[in-house]
Amino acid sequence: MRADARDNRARIMTAADEVFGQSPAASTDDVAKLAGVGIATVFRHFATKTELLEAVLTLRLERLRDRALQLAGSADPGAAFYEFFTQVVSESASKLAIAEALTASGVAAAGEEARAAGHGMREAFDGLLTAAQKAGAVRPDAHFPEVYALLIGSSRGATAARLDAETRDRMLALVYDGLKPPT
Amino acid sequence: MRADARDNRARIMTAADEVFGQSPAASTDDVAKLAGVGIATVFRHFATKTELLEAVLTLRLERLRDRALQLAGSADPGAAFYEFFTQVVSESASKLAIAEALTASGVAAAGEEARAAGHGMREAFDGLLTAAQKAGAVRPDAHFPEVYALLIGSSRGATAARLDAETRDRMLALVYDGLKPPT
Repeated sequence: MRADARDNRARIMTAADEVFGQSPAASTDDVAKLAGVGIATVFRHFATKTELLEAVLTLRLERLRDRALQLAGSADPGAAFYEFFTQVVSESASKLAIAEALTASGVAAAGEEARAAGHGMREAFDGLLTAAQKAGAVRPDAHFPEVYALLIGSSRGATAARLDAETRDRMLALVYDGLKPPT
Repeated sequence: MRADARDNRARIMTAADEVFGQSPAASTDDVAKLAGVGIATVFRHFATKTELLEAVLTLRLERLRDRALQLAGSADPGAAFYEFFTQVVSESASKLAIAEALTASGVAAAGEEARAAGHGMREAFDGLLTAAQKAGAVRPDAHFPEVYALLIGSSRGATAARLDAETRDRMLALVYDGLKPPT
């Protein structure tokens, strides 16, 4: 891919992340406008709206995975775990909007790439959990499946109830108190 | 309404609750078959699939509200609160399927009756929370908005992650530990 084509692709994806993250009902035209390119350029890179949505969702999941891997090297595994949990919940409204747009576009489930990215994110989160448990910051009897369900649930709860940041943080404080080892 | 028409209506709603609770993509025909009535009878009671879905969702919410009001008279307000919380989360998969079917049928938001029923359910839950806090079974510094967000979040987390009952109960144990007053 030539450098200007790569630039265009990156601009389209940044614009799509913004546009679809705010409204699942947005159009490819809205994306082209925000990216400052013609609609034909969008379709040259992404043959369908579904392809574009997939790419944006995959990018978001990969970024979260990278953030988790970066935090995994932290000197304070407890703080790293809770910081990542908070970040996922904070970003969830726009991530869920993209997933919703994908469903509305007629795709029952995310494609191969988004699934692989989601898997990578879960594995990295599992690593953060294990390290935080070893450091005594998360109770040792909590298993990955229920902690991951709490992460997904907190994300969806915050989104469905359209919580302001303050209420969301109070909800997370309750969740974190449940995750901490009994004192 | 005559007695046999009332019977038919009740049978259709019971069947619809079952059918749409399992699969949002089910058809009105599936409902008629399970109810043992002709499709014309279904449409005589519910002019559209949307009307039928609304009625079923409303009935579910009203039953939850009634359960909360019934539990409100309990001698153990703490047990009543946690029992209701668990019931809502356990039933959520089928309730969400009905709400999803409603969205898929082209209705952006639930209609007036379902909204009123949802409001009644929230108020009854708020009553259970207040009583449980007075009894010392829920921390006094937890406010309704974040506790309600936790209820919605736990429901959606359990549904999205397709948790088996055991994992769901372990997730709820973490949530409840966060809700209990510090010892």
